[in-house]
Amino acid sequence: MSGETPAGGTYSFLTEETSVDAVLARLENCQDERLAEVMTSVIRHLHAVIKEVEPTQQEWALAIDFLTKTGQKCDDKRQEWILMSDTLGVSMLVDAINHRRPSGATENTVLGPFHVEGAPVHALGGNISKDGKGTPCFVSGRVLDSDGNAIPGAKLDVWQSNADGFYDVQQPGIQPAMNLRGIFRADDEGRYWFRTQKPQFYPVPTDGPVGKLLMAMGRHPFRPAHLHYIVSAEGCETVTTHIFVRDDPYLHSDAVFGVKESLIRDFDMVDDPDRAAEIGLPNPFAEVAFDVVLARV
Amino acid sequence: MSGETPAGGTYSFLTEETSVDAVLARLENCQDERLAEVMTSVIRHLHAVIKEVEPTQQEWALAIDFLTKTGQKCDDKRQEWILMSDTLGVSMLVDAINHRRPSGATENTVLGPFHVEGAPVHALGGNISKDGKGTPCFVSGRVLDSDGNAIPGAKLDVWQSNADGFYDVQQPGIQPAMNLRGIFRADDEGRYWFRTQKPQFYPVPTDGPVGKLLMAMGRHPFRPAHLHYIVSAEGCETVTTHIFVRDDPYLHSDAVFGVKESLIRDFDMVDDPDRAAEIGLPNPFAEVAFDVVLARV
Repeated sequence: MSGETPAGGTYSFLTEETSVDAVLARLENCQDERLAEVMTSVIRHLHAVIKEVEPTQQEWALAIDFLTKTGQKCDDKRQEWILMSDTLGVSMLVDAINHRRPSGATENTVLGPFHVEGAPVHALGGNISKDGKGTPCFVSGRVLDSDGNAIPGAKLDVWQSNADGFYDVQQPGIQPAMNLRGIFRADDEGRYWFRTQKPQFYPVPTDGPVGKLLMAMGRHPFRPAHLHYIVSAEGCETVTTHIFVRDDPYLHSDAVFGVKESLIRDFDMVDDPDRAAEIGLPNPFAEVAFDVVLARV
Repeated sequence: MSGETPAGGTYSFLTEETSVDAVLARLENCQDERLAEVMTSVIRHLHAVIKEVEPTQQEWALAIDFLTKTGQKCDDKRQEWILMSDTLGVSMLVDAINHRRPSGATENTVLGPFHVEGAPVHALGGNISKDGKGTPCFVSGRVLDSDGNAIPGAKLDVWQSNADGFYDVQQPGIQPAMNLRGIFRADDEGRYWFRTQKPQFYPVPTDGPVGKLLMAMGRHPFRPAHLHYIVSAEGCETVTTHIFVRDDPYLHSDAVFGVKESLIRDFDMVDDPDRAAEIGLPNPFAEVAFDVVLARV
């Protein structure tokens, strides 16, 4: 049943057949064009899901309960809705849409929740591992533009979890503050190098509604081992990315879909006492090379 | 990039092109077939929304914030996610899908959040208005089956907001407990009648994220005046419904899409001192008739 309202608008009472049109008609007075565009898409697809799935009232009540508890699990240290977005591949999709780069430029991946502003600035070669755990690791590479020119002075902000699979901010009082975080500046030839420990895979939080959903879907909660980078330089598009350890058991099933082929690297074990001494690491150690290519803007 | 994992599963790294398949592939170990079916639909449509809308990172952060705050607004007296479901027409759609009835049977509409178990049982003709506000109103009708046979003893559970637009449970200490709630039993001919006050339109709550979204969409928060019924009888499908006041200004724009053509009724003003005295109401009064048709199961 539809028609014209006394005020001259249109109406249609909601039925299974008219449900989308009935709800979209109510956007007729929306002054915010972008919101109207977004809500039109949301309403269309939300109703499509309901029509495909035909939830029982009990199932819809379960969905409401899930949505409610996901918000209620959030606080200043925990963002369960971002975890939901991450584990359904939405965060990576949004990231991809917002970072369409020229071929050859280093690809983005998700920022994740563990970046901290104000990490310590190190000289090139500095060691960001303050707890000395895990396998010592030497990281080096160059920061270049898409034409292969060095970008002297490029800023590299790097961070990672420790050998136990936790970031420092997850273990205050257990890990030293600012463990495994550092800011470096590339040298005159765009080169950078630093010491750390080899990253380890770790689980996303599983004690909330999203973790329970992951388990119910038959999925594991692990992220493959990775080292985070934010690389920036004047006149270039900033890259937020990770490098992933090639032999990680979860490389092909990252719980948050962060892996890209171009970001996988070999972390080779090196047994060379002279080189270890030169670098300032115990022998043997892991070594990885990663060049970052920034797009000029 | 896709292929076979070391364990023999399939994988595909997430890109804009592969995002749906990459996420759906992770359902391969889901033991709960219904959950897999639901999540397949959710994932497909969620990614479709993102691809249509192409949110910026800032917009996606706003969405995450909205989702979070909607859960955090909920407590034992407030269910903001149900309000979200209601105002996007989803509750009515789920209700419609779950109550496909033979033509002629009284149609369902949403239960709403204000039903209370254990309302007082009244004799036929009883007055459920304990605050005596508003326009006195006489309600009567019959409970029938689809063949037109009376259903003696059918149970009618009725409730409504008062003339100020609030339910008793929204105003504890202001309204008398169990104001405008009652349970009646139809007589031997399926007839029922009772006294009340004419219902009034009222707003859904607007002090939370969903209310703000409604306003941003250019929508008003009002529900047209209505009287709730749950009607049940042995051997029949229970009906949860309302009747709506035909001349209500919000009849064609119910904030929760609850109106159906078949549920609209005239609430006629009657000026007849003798009838008023007979019924036990002040003169003049409003009168409405509503027959309920239950489907046999």
